[in-house]
Amino acid sequence: MDTSARTALSPAPSPPDADGTLWLNAEEQRLWRAHLEVGRLLAYQMERGLQPFGLAINDYTILVELSEAPERRMRMTDLAVATLQSKSRLSHQITRMEAAGLVTREGCPGDRRGLYAVLTEHGWETMRQVAPHHVRSVREHFIDRLEPEQISSMYESLAPIADHLRGLRGRG
Amino acid sequence: MDTSARTALSPAPSPPDADGTLWLNAEEQRLWRAHLEVGRLLAYQMERGLQPFGLAINDYTILVELSEAPERRMRMTDLAVATLQSKSRLSHQITRMEAAGLVTREGCPGDRRGLYAVLTEHGWETMRQVAPHHVRSVREHFIDRLEPEQISSMYESLAPIADHLRGLRGRG
Repeated sequence: MDTSARTALSPAPSPPDADGTLWLNAEEQRLWRAHLEVGRLLAYQMERGLQPFGLAINDYTILVELSEAPERRMRMTDLAVATLQSKSRLSHQITRMEAAGLVTREGCPGDRRGLYAVLTEHGWETMRQVAPHHVRSVREHFIDRLEPEQISSMYESLAPIADHLRGLRGRG
Repeated sequence: MDTSARTALSPAPSPPDADGTLWLNAEEQRLWRAHLEVGRLLAYQMERGLQPFGLAINDYTILVELSEAPERRMRMTDLAVATLQSKSRLSHQITRMEAAGLVTREGCPGDRRGLYAVLTEHGWETMRQVAPHHVRSVREHFIDRLEPEQISSMYESLAPIADHLRGLRGRG
């Protein structure tokens, strides 16, 4: 009886298993692990950098979206799509950010569908204060560790994957 | 008065700002955004794939670690390091996974420091069942969308970043 279990991460044979599963080979596996690890460790590092400002990474993402939007406001449904979270989860987050004075919710006269999240003056000032620290952190821990050719080739690799995944997400 | 605020993600000028901040240029910015987006969308897709098995992505990560460890057991402190989470957060998660019958906690006679997380037979069977689905998902949404040269060059780019971040994390 074969009691061995293979994981998505375990060393892989060339031929598929009897059930058709093609395990990752060593090269694929180390990339997948590095990708996961960099993602998690960067998130941790970004969180640490934002902590002194009382912000979580998701708060920062929302501040970025709103500060770049016309009139610094976005419909809640669009903001949920842009930040890749469910409407209910976004709603909870906006409630917390509202309590911190960073955003407000506003209805839109003549637009029954419309509930907007709007950046407050305090939210805007917070962005101005935090952004330079954040961009230095992005450089120090990621961008400045890559050569220009690596920056463009990694982008060329990731962009079609992002397109594919965005399409899937769109279909729910 | 200049009321413009730049974010880590906004278009960047070549020279640094007066405060020395070197904003991301267009190439750097699109890579950073693609990296964040792929990370978030992949996590979403992996979660969806695991849902039918009643697992979250963090559960799966722990099952992988334990299934690859000698005797399918790890000291809690080592498991926290391996899965990049705090001891208290891991403890909550192990409590949930214990309730689901996937793992147990065991003390170690003669080792006063030692509290171990141990994969149960049910946890092992769950891994065997889930892993083929998970690896197919990793292939479909990430690995199989890359050419072999892209797989090795992306790894070469990410590995030093992972090393750097792991070192930082180790220093607390």
